[in-house]
Amino acid sequence: MPEASQSPSIITAAMLAIGDELLSGRTKDKNIGHLADLLTLSGIDLKEVRIVADEEDAIVEALNALRLRYDYVFTSGGIGPTHDDITADAVSKAFGVPCIYDPDAMKLLADMYKRREMEFTDARQRMARMPEGARHIPNPVSTAPGFIIGNVHVMAGVPQVFQAMVDNVLPTLRLGAKMLSRALPCPYGEGDIGTLLAEVQKAHPQTSIGSYPKYDGQRFSTEIVVRARDPQILDAAAEAVAEMIAGIDRAKTPTNPTADA
Amino acid sequence: MPEASQSPSIITAAMLAIGDELLSGRTKDKNIGHLADLLTLSGIDLKEVRIVADEEDAIVEALNALRLRYDYVFTSGGIGPTHDDITADAVSKAFGVPCIYDPDAMKLLADMYKRREMEFTDARQRMARMPEGARHIPNPVSTAPGFIIGNVHVMAGVPQVFQAMVDNVLPTLRLGAKMLSRALPCPYGEGDIGTLLAEVQKAHPQTSIGSYPKYDGQRFSTEIVVRARDPQILDAAAEAVAEMIAGIDRAKTPTNPTADA
Repeated sequence: MPEASQSPSIITAAMLAIGDELLSGRTKDKNIGHLADLLTLSGIDLKEVRIVADEEDAIVEALNALRLRYDYVFTSGGIGPTHDDITADAVSKAFGVPCIYDPDAMKLLADMYKRREMEFTDARQRMARMPEGARHIPNPVSTAPGFIIGNVHVMAGVPQVFQAMVDNVLPTLRLGAKMLSRALPCPYGEGDIGTLLAEVQKAHPQTSIGSYPKYDGQRFSTEIVVRARDPQILDAAAEAVAEMIAGIDRAKTPTNPTADA
Repeated sequence: MPEASQSPSIITAAMLAIGDELLSGRTKDKNIGHLADLLTLSGIDLKEVRIVADEEDAIVEALNALRLRYDYVFTSGGIGPTHDDITADAVSKAFGVPCIYDPDAMKLLADMYKRREMEFTDARQRMARMPEGARHIPNPVSTAPGFIIGNVHVMAGVPQVFQAMVDNVLPTLRLGAKMLSRALPCPYGEGDIGTLLAEVQKAHPQTSIGSYPKYDGQRFSTEIVVRARDPQILDAAAEAVAEMIAGIDRAKTPTNPTADA
């Protein structure tokens, strides 16, 4: 089991998205946000994301930095059949093991192409390559498996396949104490609330209070997000934030002395 | 001037996106793809992206790794008025200089809030903080400037503001020899083209040929992208790819011997 986390209930993760097309802007990544959502729901803290090109040295270096630091690493991209798909080689190199044509993966793919009466080309056989000793991540969409070695989970870049692989990986992970969160919409900009919110944060040190500015083209508003692992601690801080907003409301509303009633 | 690039015509860059909300999935990043598009148009190679949390150590470490390795670094996020906006402090720490209330930024903000008859709160004054000696990046959307120190360009996370700041930064950058690209749609999956495409790549070593699988829920097709800095080299490789696709077309189309005419 990975041992990088600070406490048994905090599980950390990093993602490494691999592909020239993400860095050229040709493809807009959809996998990072998807994984972030699911890890948050699983109580796993995504601490860092890196995007690197289809270059072996870049992949190896990033992967070795991330896998030693976090409990889990998830990669996307570079496991297809073409010459620029070099993730299996790079991951093998990072772990110092041979990159082999995995016999089980070869059989899965050979059977699938036979059923579909398609040739099992050299290029397609490349999709069976993975570090020796790796376990498969099933791919219900297009058969060619992802793989797991150590704490690294290697998945496809095509979002439909990535998502299917993530669905197969999540049940195998240790879950953390889930980070609970409460979002409070706030009609005021950060400049109006900043000082008060810093006081609320100081008074509730076991929570993490973030404020996220929104701009509608005319004015800023804010979404305030309180996060904590303990529900009571979360409630107390969320209440303090709501009271803070109500206090600004009262201060901004001109007193309306009723004339006679 | 930065000196990290391998040759005068290759200019490299990295992006550091800062914010807990990107890692929790609450906010889906829109800035990475936008910057990637504009850098590609400017002939600047975006080589790496990192996303880190609003944690000083994480920001300092990532920033120092990236700024020493690439010609330019662009950051997004964490320069607002609230307690969790710590990018100015972290960047100052990375450069080993004091984080100060920049007098020009204080004046810009004070004037703006005066015009709008709003209080220039302590929180709002935080937006004037930057490393001593930094230059401003103008912010036509909401006044509070980004800043430049060394080769690092610090910009806001709100996409409208980020984009406005990028527009102000781009004309100040050295432009590289622009990477040209040609995209060729290909109706075949990567397994059909992989072996042939690897041969085309081998025959055109001064180009970078990528293939990007698309999946429509039923079958895979591919977009093949040829990239090169020299237009003639690009043309020759793109032609070879087109000929490769036509060759597969011919092989897949059953010959239609006309009966008698």
